[in-house]
Amino acid sequence: MTDHPLKTLIEAADRAITAEDFDTLMDFYTDDAVLVIAPGRLATGKAAIRDAFVAIAAYFGNSVRVSQGDMQVLEGGDTALVIMETFVHSAGPDGKEVTETRRATYVFRLDGDTWRCAVDNSYGTTLLDQSAPSTGAE
Amino acid sequence: MTDHPLKTLIEAADRAITAEDFDTLMDFYTDDAVLVIAPGRLATGKAAIRDAFVAIAAYFGNSVRVSQGDMQVLEGGDTALVIMETFVHSAGPDGKEVTETRRATYVFRLDGDTWRCAVDNSYGTTLLDQSAPSTGAE
Repeated sequence: MTDHPLKTLIEAADRAITAEDFDTLMDFYTDDAVLVIAPGRLATGKAAIRDAFVAIAAYFGNSVRVSQGDMQVLEGGDTALVIMETFVHSAGPDGKEVTETRRATYVFRLDGDTWRCAVDNSYGTTLLDQSAPSTGAE
Repeated sequence: MTDHPLKTLIEAADRAITAEDFDTLMDFYTDDAVLVIAPGRLATGKAAIRDAFVAIAAYFGNSVRVSQGDMQVLEGGDTALVIMETFVHSAGPDGKEVTETRRATYVFRLDGDTWRCAVDNSYGTTLLDQSAPSTGAE
């Protein structure tokens, strides 16, 4: 079985995150994409998403590495929901690698023959663990 | 705080499911939408989705009622990911109501000024509980 094109794409985006190549990373997003930085904190649009990735890299002492596990792709025409096991590796306080496992939800749109990410929510359905519901506004 | 338009829309779709008004229900979907009937089982396109809802209603002895809890909407331009607590009520073997709670993931597309569902996955990230990954093909 060959990998789904979105698997290849997400792996390339992960490499860009690890390399802190944020210009390349922005090619993976639609112009008006939204990123969940943390539950309740959103970045909307490429400029804000780029700033967020720079801040996240600095927060983790430039040690972030992202990798992926199992994935499920649900395609409805030019729109796809990806459900994906995501591992966020970073250096802990003692320098040893710490790994956080998430079940992410990514929404991609087909733009010509290129899939681009419109919603990047690595927190998946755990957003519902928050007490105050949000309606997507900052 | 006024409700998000997608909350109103999803509640209207739930009423159509309860009323088994599947023609009205189909208006909520894009033409090439995909529905997760059960983990690993997909229905793609309005005709297949309609058939699936008829079969689901029959399976539950025409007693299905759907309601919603907390929701989070993540809007990236004309594409929105909805993370929603979903309650599926049906009659159990003894006639008493049984409620299953899910954390659903719905993807909506803005078509003119109307949101339509492109991916209906009431199982959320629990799809990863399956052993065999799927790439979206039946």
